[in-house]
Amino acid sequence: MAPGTRQPTIKEVAASAGVSPMTVSRTLAGGVNVRPDLQAKVLAAVKELGYFRNENARSLRPGQASGLIGVAITNLGNPYYGNFALGVEEVAAKHGKRIVLGNTGEDCGREAQLVADFIGRQVEGLVVVPSGGAAEHLRADRLGDTPIVLASRQVAGLDVDTVLLDDVGGAYQGTLSLLESGHTRIGFLGNVPSVSTGQRRYIGYEKALAERGISPDARLIQRDQQDVEAARSAMERLLDLPDAPTAIFSANNRNTIGALKEIGRRIRSGAGATGFPAIVSFDSFELSEMMPVPVTVIDSDARQLGREAAELLFARLQAADSHGPSRMIELPVTVSMADR
Amino acid sequence: MAPGTRQPTIKEVAASAGVSPMTVSRTLAGGVNVRPDLQAKVLAAVKELGYFRNENARSLRPGQASGLIGVAITNLGNPYYGNFALGVEEVAAKHGKRIVLGNTGEDCGREAQLVADFIGRQVEGLVVVPSGGAAEHLRADRLGDTPIVLASRQVAGLDVDTVLLDDVGGAYQGTLSLLESGHTRIGFLGNVPSVSTGQRRYIGYEKALAERGISPDARLIQRDQQDVEAARSAMERLLDLPDAPTAIFSANNRNTIGALKEIGRRIRSGAGATGFPAIVSFDSFELSEMMPVPVTVIDSDARQLGREAAELLFARLQAADSHGPSRMIELPVTVSMADR
Repeated sequence: MAPGTRQPTIKEVAASAGVSPMTVSRTLAGGVNVRPDLQAKVLAAVKELGYFRNENARSLRPGQASGLIGVAITNLGNPYYGNFALGVEEVAAKHGKRIVLGNTGEDCGREAQLVADFIGRQVEGLVVVPSGGAAEHLRADRLGDTPIVLASRQVAGLDVDTVLLDDVGGAYQGTLSLLESGHTRIGFLGNVPSVSTGQRRYIGYEKALAERGISPDARLIQRDQQDVEAARSAMERLLDLPDAPTAIFSANNRNTIGALKEIGRRIRSGAGATGFPAIVSFDSFELSEMMPVPVTVIDSDARQLGREAAELLFARLQAADSHGPSRMIELPVTVSMADR
Repeated sequence: MAPGTRQPTIKEVAASAGVSPMTVSRTLAGGVNVRPDLQAKVLAAVKELGYFRNENARSLRPGQASGLIGVAITNLGNPYYGNFALGVEEVAAKHGKRIVLGNTGEDCGREAQLVADFIGRQVEGLVVVPSGGAAEHLRADRLGDTPIVLASRQVAGLDVDTVLLDDVGGAYQGTLSLLESGHTRIGFLGNVPSVSTGQRRYIGYEKALAERGISPDARLIQRDQQDVEAARSAMERLLDLPDAPTAIFSANNRNTIGALKEIGRRIRSGAGATGFPAIVSFDSFELSEMMPVPVTVIDSDARQLGREAAELLFARLQAADSHGPSRMIELPVTVSMADR
């Protein structure tokens, strides 16, 4: 604010807009249950009078809240997490809250720092996609009673509300679809086992193989690729095996992209477009239907994952049982067979 | 905080970690210029003692700041904007600030509400990718002197710091590459002209055609697609023309994906994989090298765009000339010819 500027009151804004002060508050809190035409009048008056709601002032009165929800994700550059954040924001806005977003880059230290910073800003709650490393900093007793919800990944020994995908079931179904097509040598591309999705999806893969009496072949299993280039080179190793896999189960989006890039590289260098492994990919990606090999996609709704995580958080913030036992939700996934 | 919990002081944390109070502050502010091992000690002590820095309390003393930068983007589900936000966050963190992120969904009303809300939270500055609609709510005199930087798109009549891509130059070069390959009937797929990138990229397309004495054929120009499905059906119309274009200039990522989806649909329904237009795409996308038609990509660094926007903002926040004339930066783009 410019020094000396006098703050108009909410009543003055309401009078100027011809609405109630409550309508002004609701509009500035996100507009829930306020007719668009009234919201427009309020915003016009807010601009006309230069009224600014002082969230921080409100947050400082004892017992008052910051109006912020801290959200920590591992990779904002991955559209999956962008859509996840949209889901959290959508639910937060319904409650008149905003999200403060931070990116951990899969780094446990950054995650600890980010969470400490969020707590310092008195966020009302935390939604965290854990990096998978040490997680003492996520323990409830370290958060000053700020509620936390973990999303997408769980953390061993951390007993807090968690929303996961049906990782095991999805990986099981996807792998089974390859076995049913007659494949017996099925490679596995995944992220580090310390990340629970990597471990859970591997379990689903193993489970499907076991049902057919197939024990995993260590040479076909590559499970520590955290980025596309590492995944491409893991795929290169698999394709170069004397007895290469005829199909690939890829445990996430980054590994699938890397595997496909290696196939593309070989096709462009004249390898011919046939004879490459079929791929089952956990996580969808755009243009999957355009690939030179059939790609079966195990899909989930990232935005819904964000919504569910936020709903769990607000249930904690509002419920009488704010200290009740922690909840675990598993969201379903869909398997879409490659259409060829 | 749990009621009655006593807050340890920053000095107690410093003593416990065996560092200076300044090192504690720096670590909690993002860790700039603090050795990782010292950061670890500080975070351990913070966790041990349950110390929480109270940003809001600090922000409330007169002249103190909220420590927040408001960032409004149009589509968080688009990885381009996710990476853009990462760039803003990266620079903000260097200054010990966090970003509050909001998504406008290309909706001008939501943008106005989001900005009003940010101002209400006393953000120290705003970085906005404008929706392209009415923008009175972005005028400096409406923001209570909170500095604002526009990114990716400019707003007519809004004289504020702006970071753009070289839209005209990139579109010109991309279209020229098609003309040089002998194409004369080049279709245009783009977003609404009210969005400055759509308009600027169209100008570059027209400029290249004009140099070859070609006047744009209205039937080849589709420029109001805001999502992939609208783009796919626009491409369908172009391909169904009696005299269909032999090449396509696509003004953004969403239009390129839609155009490729229509080509894929026709190939899968037996159209054969040849005879489709070559594509030049403004904005890159993953696996562009795997497409059934050659795709030339006009690429830009989304993260750098975010960094530059944030740097302009912090220059305003710190510079003596905080009220100096507004700056306009154009970032270069790179044209990568399809490798076939």
